[in-house]
Amino acid sequence: MSIGTLTTKLDAFFAQNSFDEPHLAIDLDKVASNFKNLASALPEASIYYAVKANPEPQILSCLKDIGSCFDAASITEIKLCLSLGIPAKSISFGNTIKKQGDISQAFTLGIRSYAFDSEEELQKIASLAPGSDVYCRVLVDCAGADWPLSHKFGCSTTMARGLLLKSINLGLQPIGLSFHVGSQQTQISQWDNALEQIHDIYKDLKEQGIELSTLNLGGGFPTAYNAHVPSIAQYGGSLSAALEKHFGDNCPKIIIEPGRYIVGDAGVIEAEVVLVSRKNAEEEKRWVYLDIGIFSGLAECLDEAIKYPITVVGKEADTNLGPVILAGPSCDSVDVLYEKFNYQLPLDLKSGDKIRIHATGAYTTTYSSVGFNGFPPLSCSCI
Amino acid sequence: MSIGTLTTKLDAFFAQNSFDEPHLAIDLDKVASNFKNLASALPEASIYYAVKANPEPQILSCLKDIGSCFDAASITEIKLCLSLGIPAKSISFGNTIKKQGDISQAFTLGIRSYAFDSEEELQKIASLAPGSDVYCRVLVDCAGADWPLSHKFGCSTTMARGLLLKSINLGLQPIGLSFHVGSQQTQISQWDNALEQIHDIYKDLKEQGIELSTLNLGGGFPTAYNAHVPSIAQYGGSLSAALEKHFGDNCPKIIIEPGRYIVGDAGVIEAEVVLVSRKNAEEEKRWVYLDIGIFSGLAECLDEAIKYPITVVGKEADTNLGPVILAGPSCDSVDVLYEKFNYQLPLDLKSGDKIRIHATGAYTTTYSSVGFNGFPPLSCSCI
Repeated sequence: MSIGTLTTKLDAFFAQNSFDEPHLAIDLDKVASNFKNLASALPEASIYYAVKANPEPQILSCLKDIGSCFDAASITEIKLCLSLGIPAKSISFGNTIKKQGDISQAFTLGIRSYAFDSEEELQKIASLAPGSDVYCRVLVDCAGADWPLSHKFGCSTTMARGLLLKSINLGLQPIGLSFHVGSQQTQISQWDNALEQIHDIYKDLKEQGIELSTLNLGGGFPTAYNAHVPSIAQYGGSLSAALEKHFGDNCPKIIIEPGRYIVGDAGVIEAEVVLVSRKNAEEEKRWVYLDIGIFSGLAECLDEAIKYPITVVGKEADTNLGPVILAGPSCDSVDVLYEKFNYQLPLDLKSGDKIRIHATGAYTTTYSSVGFNGFPPLSCSCI
Repeated sequence: MSIGTLTTKLDAFFAQNSFDEPHLAIDLDKVASNFKNLASALPEASIYYAVKANPEPQILSCLKDIGSCFDAASITEIKLCLSLGIPAKSISFGNTIKKQGDISQAFTLGIRSYAFDSEEELQKIASLAPGSDVYCRVLVDCAGADWPLSHKFGCSTTMARGLLLKSINLGLQPIGLSFHVGSQQTQISQWDNALEQIHDIYKDLKEQGIELSTLNLGGGFPTAYNAHVPSIAQYGGSLSAALEKHFGDNCPKIIIEPGRYIVGDAGVIEAEVVLVSRKNAEEEKRWVYLDIGIFSGLAECLDEAIKYPITVVGKEADTNLGPVILAGPSCDSVDVLYEKFNYQLPLDLKSGDKIRIHATGAYTTTYSSVGFNGFPPLSCSCI
């Protein structure tokens, strides 16, 4: 199991601090280096950090200081960014589903960039955020992502073309298209397929006299969990090549919205083994129950979508291992983390042992329930 | 669509109170009448309300006043019950997965009844809650439940027999067995099957001189969502008959742990339509996005497990309807409520319309995330 996510700083932090409940620690140096690596790999892109991945104020401030812009999913995230001194022009309201009152508030707060993917949303933006920049999200094929995006977001390319034209009549500024190939997307070829669909619209609209200035490539840059994933340099190279192939010298301004890539492997959760048991004497697989589960931070273990590397504190790497089923502490039977995937943990594992769940910096804290079964939400330190 | 869950009180409450965010209202009279109906249907049983279903203090106080005992999943729930004046002897620590520190605390607070399903847990209870009553959860077949319980809880009957015997040597008081046929269990015959497995152990242990005093039938009493479910009187009758069939005159003291049945149909959520859209002009199904989703209270819509009745405020029953896909407001594509099940909503539905999600009193508030995408957790009023 390849890990490499426990930085010296995180190791020292957990050595010096003990927690009664599961705790996530984020290495801000790693956040910054991830940002810089991505910026180097795709120098033509402006990076809009997807605040929803982890909205800890220290993460946002760290990224602000090194030049990030921000993609906000809600008015709460917009207000949080503004409260940290992030200028409104660096914030995009990227959710295609926005309440009317939230659009009004955002506009009053100075936000001038809005996503949409439907006629009703476009009408709302036109009347509540007049004159703003708008970009239309389109549906692209996203097979190959570990956490795929279904059809919840985006419209057909035909509809996108019509709505961008309409936005002009509504007094808005159509700046381009956005798409998302799915979070943790590991098939580089998907970018190429998507860009082919996208370029057709840019070409069509140009022929009608409308120059779209911007192309939003979304997120989907992967964090290395257990499986091998291509390096970010490989990603950047392939993306640049695909952009060159489809747009040539007329490439629009590129925006990317990474979340997981920036914070995923910058975080490690320390948790505790609550119980090790067998359902009957003959069973080889032990059940290992942790004090963290689906409802207290590990929602992305649903359907075993994300397979975090797990290590046991104080156990040598050559400890004798055996197969386990991993589950959370709640009385809910859905709260099973890994049953099919063959996790191996030490044979002498017992109640009270501390474990580390690696690469858990993204989509953990805010997914926590407020207190399902009375268990507290996941706490977090940024160091 | 049969509903019948919007009581006059709830209707008046929502007519008089307006909320910017989704809001759950609980009719305490309905909570009390559900409790009384269950008590009448199964008069031989002591009712331990499953606090996890909805831990609102007013619900707990209401149930305390009419004679309920309480099943707690965590030390937090135990402390909450005690803070409301519920005596320790009326509280059972029903989670089979307990931290050592939590067992110690519970014992100090006077809790003397503990669930277990494994040797390690039994050892922990013996050393940290010496002399306490213990009951062993066994695995029973639970096909037919809408929200089934997998194999996370319970051990084999062979193991249960051995552990109950062992508990005596450890200085504990083995009081019996517990099992759970799955929440929202609608096949009455499952109770009969389970009791057959259970009775064998009572008989065996009696032959070894150990009289188990208690039998915990768990929960699983259903709330009527969309589908027809048997009445609680039918349930009670079948259960009583099954107990009589298997235990005859030697029936142990019966405990039940209802959660959903007590609070499910006592609650209604009022939420708002944020967006109505189509992905392309030809699509018949509209996408309807609400300001509540999987991560803000409707976790039981995962895999469309629970199908809540939904109505639109201010629309006549004979409004023209059309098929919809229902989704939550977050940027997460998993946050789709109903895509396969054919929900029908008015053809003139639009952003800003208020909707009611019925029978949502159980497993909603505490499942809410602390703030995924910046959306606030579900708030609740008890009236």
